[in-house]
Amino acid sequence: MKEFEHYISNIKNTDASLFQKDILLTWERSVEELKAVLNIADALKYLHSNNISTRLFESGIAVSLFRDNSTRTRFSFASASNLLGLSVQDLDEGKSQIAHGETVRETANMISFLSEVIGIRDDMYLGAGNAFMSEVGEALDLGKEEGVLNQRPALVNLQSDMDHPTQTMADFLHLTHHFSSSDGRSGIDNLRGKKIAMTWAYSPSYGKPLSVPQGVIALMTRFGMEVSLAYPEGYELIPEIMETAGTFAEESGGSFNVCNSMDEAFQNADIVYPKSWAPYKVMEQRTKLLRKQDTQGLKELEKRCLEQNAEHKDWECTEQNMKLTKDGEALYMHCLPADISSISCDQGEVSAGVFEKYRTDTYVEAGYKPFIIAAMILANRFENPVETLEYLMRRNDKRIHI
Amino acid sequence: MKEFEHYISNIKNTDASLFQKDILLTWERSVEELKAVLNIADALKYLHSNNISTRLFESGIAVSLFRDNSTRTRFSFASASNLLGLSVQDLDEGKSQIAHGETVRETANMISFLSEVIGIRDDMYLGAGNAFMSEVGEALDLGKEEGVLNQRPALVNLQSDMDHPTQTMADFLHLTHHFSSSDGRSGIDNLRGKKIAMTWAYSPSYGKPLSVPQGVIALMTRFGMEVSLAYPEGYELIPEIMETAGTFAEESGGSFNVCNSMDEAFQNADIVYPKSWAPYKVMEQRTKLLRKQDTQGLKELEKRCLEQNAEHKDWECTEQNMKLTKDGEALYMHCLPADISSISCDQGEVSAGVFEKYRTDTYVEAGYKPFIIAAMILANRFENPVETLEYLMRRNDKRIHI
Amino acid sequence: MKEFEHYISNIKNTDASLFQKDILLTWERSVEELKAVLNIADALKYLHSNNISTRLFESGIAVSLFRDNSTRTRFSFASASNLLGLSVQDLDEGKSQIAHGETVRETANMISFLSEVIGIRDDMYLGAGNAFMSEVGEALDLGKEEGVLNQRPALVNLQSDMDHPTQTMADFLHLTHHFSSSDGRSGIDNLRGKKIAMTWAYSPSYGKPLSVPQGVIALMTRFGMEVSLAYPEGYELIPEIMETAGTFAEESGGSFNVCNSMDEAFQNADIVYPKSWAPYKVMEQRTKLLRKQDTQGLKELEKRCLEQNAEHKDWECTEQNMKLTKDGEALYMHCLPADISSISCDQGEVSAGVFEKYRTDTYVEAGYKPFIIAAMILANRFENPVETLEYLMRRNDKRIHI
Repeated sequence: MKEFEHYISNIKNTDASLFQKDILLTWERSVEELKAVLNIADALKYLHSNNISTRLFESGIAVSLFRDNSTRTRFSFASASNLLGLSVQDLDEGKSQIAHGETVRETANMISFLSEVIGIRDDMYLGAGNAFMSEVGEALDLGKEEGVLNQRPALVNLQSDMDHPTQTMADFLHLTHHFSSSDGRSGIDNLRGKKIAMTWAYSPSYGKPLSVPQGVIALMTRFGMEVSLAYPEGYELIPEIMETAGTFAEESGGSFNVCNSMDEAFQNADIVYPKSWAPYKVMEQRTKLLRKQDTQGLKELEKRCLEQNAEHKDWECTEQNMKLTKDGEALYMHCLPADISSISCDQGEVSAGVFEKYRTDTYVEAGYKPFIIAAMILANRFENPVETLEYLMRRNDKRIHI
Repeated sequence: MKEFEHYISNIKNTDASLFQKDILLTWERSVEELKAVLNIADALKYLHSNNISTRLFESGIAVSLFRDNSTRTRFSFASASNLLGLSVQDLDEGKSQIAHGETVRETANMISFLSEVIGIRDDMYLGAGNAFMSEVGEALDLGKEEGVLNQRPALVNLQSDMDHPTQTMADFLHLTHHFSSSDGRSGIDNLRGKKIAMTWAYSPSYGKPLSVPQGVIALMTRFGMEVSLAYPEGYELIPEIMETAGTFAEESGGSFNVCNSMDEAFQNADIVYPKSWAPYKVMEQRTKLLRKQDTQGLKELEKRCLEQNAEHKDWECTEQNMKLTKDGEALYMHCLPADISSISCDQGEVSAGVFEKYRTDTYVEAGYKPFIIAAMILANRFENPVETLEYLMRRNDKRIHI
Repeated sequence: MKEFEHYISNIKNTDASLFQKDILLTWERSVEELKAVLNIADALKYLHSNNISTRLFESGIAVSLFRDNSTRTRFSFASASNLLGLSVQDLDEGKSQIAHGETVRETANMISFLSEVIGIRDDMYLGAGNAFMSEVGEALDLGKEEGVLNQRPALVNLQSDMDHPTQTMADFLHLTHHFSSSDGRSGIDNLRGKKIAMTWAYSPSYGKPLSVPQGVIALMTRFGMEVSLAYPEGYELIPEIMETAGTFAEESGGSFNVCNSMDEAFQNADIVYPKSWAPYKVMEQRTKLLRKQDTQGLKELEKRCLEQNAEHKDWECTEQNMKLTKDGEALYMHCLPADISSISCDQGEVSAGVFEKYRTDTYVEAGYKPFIIAAMILANRFENPVETLEYLMRRNDKRIHI
């Protein structure tokens, strides 16, 4: 109960309202709004752990649209929707008549008559994913305004070309718990001044999205953390997002540094997040080729990119470079699945030993995602989240009866 | 409340019972039965708009079987099922063992032990879709009779080769609201004498089902409307259904005319429904070729049919011919997605200007479908719909808590 | 009510606890535990038939993972989950990132944060299916132990290379009802001494799993039945499971005989279960070839195996050999779909006449499966099934309101 009241009090302190606001990019939302989501997620997780039902909808559809593969996020979205009482309906573009020339505005309305949330993953095309989600959002606003829709569903970004907010918010929530202290200071305060190394790492696979590193640097810099981004030359992220991270660091009293050495980034780090991605210039070319359906060009690009990757096989998180971190004991993070050397590939992002040491931590990290998504839905669809959560606690229905 | 009581009173007046009756073809059901469905749909939409839960089932499966692509109807069926408390389970014939030689009777029973409704789309094969649905229905009757099934699931036609009742009933419900008046006369009465032009329109695509035009002429003629069907020579519908429409018009005091001119049909029309379809003779040939898996023959047929279509590019709903309609202000209808000239194709069924003017209307039209489907399920599974709806109103559970 | 109390009393008498125990192979569980499942299934079926809601979860995910096609079992699992209040989420390995190098342990945790049950079909690879399920089970145990999971989901074997417990338990439950008597003796007692002929039968198809015959002989021998297994030379089952059946027969006071004649097995049988399967040596070879992706080798194996099958077309259940059974009236069983001569194939496992005579019986048999699965979930997730069922009865919520 005390824990729950603590979260409630934190939400009250934010004085933020996300009612009918989507979080397509964390950097479009205020720090207070993000804090509200984190605490709502904590409160929902508390209720679930204590077998208190968080059902808020007696009926309602949760639409999921995945334009790329997913296990974790798909289950997280389904679980979050179910937790609040919604039923998932996949929008499978292959089985639908969408190709049949209908507009985004039309589809957005057609799937929303009885829907309360729409979750979208669209991360393959640089310059397209976030644009598509914004277009859906505007169509929903208009649909509500024009009286076509009784309610305006929440829109949840399940990974775009720019950001992966459900992942990075879950990552951050994991950190607040990992670095929480018993002295009454919240985990968020404790993270101030902590150093996180967001680094590129070698992977034998190709074309991994930029959304996680971009999302991490743009989020963690807002809470006074020392964010060190490292990658081999040529593996830049979208420049505007790197600039945004720099600005946020200045505003929050943290720091944002970019270097081309994994070791330098790991130096004295409290947290390391070694993860592969494709250079954004490659992603730009790839997008052009995909649009032209230039199979030959795509093959050549993949070959060149894998060769480029192979020049950086030394970018691996190992027992050796982990020794450079704070007391040799930095927290290892990953959005999973990681490319683990000698387990899932010959050589990859992380050595088997390091991964095994932190395996459970990465699972716990992933476990926050369903609650972050549920919190985003709740904050978007209920005008007063505090009142809503207190109602659930007071109602005290058992989630599992008996 | 007054609105709700109005619908209840209308249902009482019909004195119709659809308990354990499927609506595979609207023309197999009485006008009173159809009126009951329309008013149940209105009552359910009223409850949804007023945040009153319409959950009637604590558990139960809603089976969906789509033998052709769908967005709108798929989501409408899922939404309707969810609205009443049922969970959708897709019957994916590719992933099932159905090919493995089991009969329709067997499959119908195997998917129904805990099912309350089965929705089927089967519109590709002329002479097959409605026959298949009827066979499923008979198998369900027998399964209940033989004690295999505890309950006899409702069967909902989500589009067959002959009719598309969830579409046309939603279309008609839209009309009753659009033409409602404040003088106490119901929308249904106001439609008496109104002229609707159900016309063919040019589309660059091929093989569109006949179910919508067939369903529209066979339904609208039952309510005293002046139904004008227009198509280029050679684009006939199934003759028996055209005859049925004629008979209905006579019985209801309306009219049913067929002509080969879009302009003639539009003349003084209150409502226009310009929509492409394939000639039924082409559909017959196509069915034969599909059964023979004659790929070459199918390609040739498609080519011939598209060439035939191309001779009628002037069959387009435009600002020009809309001027022929009543006061130049007829209501434009479409089941969506429409082939919009210069938007979804170079030239299509409707000009961009006309579509944009009526875009919101077509969305509102589509929004009735989930409630029509829910009404069909309710009417089929509950012996006394009036009592059932009054129970929901009296129970007064919030759909969205708090 | 008396019927319900009878089941409750039977469960009490078993004094068995399956709490947090999976039934991957029936022979790993005690007879008392299996009896508990049978009676829980009966109690749930009673409640469903009497329109009493059996919802036990307000939220929770039921994960289904099908590595082979399925209609019956897929719907049974979905229905069982729904009956208890859970929502099905398919784990579609093609759409997930599982191929992306993640371990079984990782996937098992990632899909389980808010899951209450995982159902798996994995029957294609001899030596692999049951091993995979066991690995998932151990990962779930560890996930709970390590604090990654709030709850340890039940794991349900929906058919492996070794056993098909939801099928054989449903089969057995069907028998207890078919052979029940009005003298107060339970069906289970009445089955003591009854003879069942589990025989191979000819099918023009190839590679049918061994799980059903293996599961039947290992289950039915535990209840004092006379089990006669018959197959043409070369169609052996996994030797260890045949040995297990022999041991069980001795322990239970039943018998287990193997012969190479359908007629011999049918002699005086109370029940016949004629069903095709592939020789386990063929399945072993097939597994090796599948792993090597040796398409040519697989084709040749299929050809050889079908030729081998074709030598035994006389292994068909017909009006003729049914005369050999007890009073010529043995109960015919099949897990469906059956290969019915002149219906689903030219010549198959059973003649059209015999199948038609017992068609309804086979449907009733299949109808027990959803309740068996629900019973397995309930027994695994609720510490005290008796208390849980009595709570449902006392709560007396209507499943279909009004």
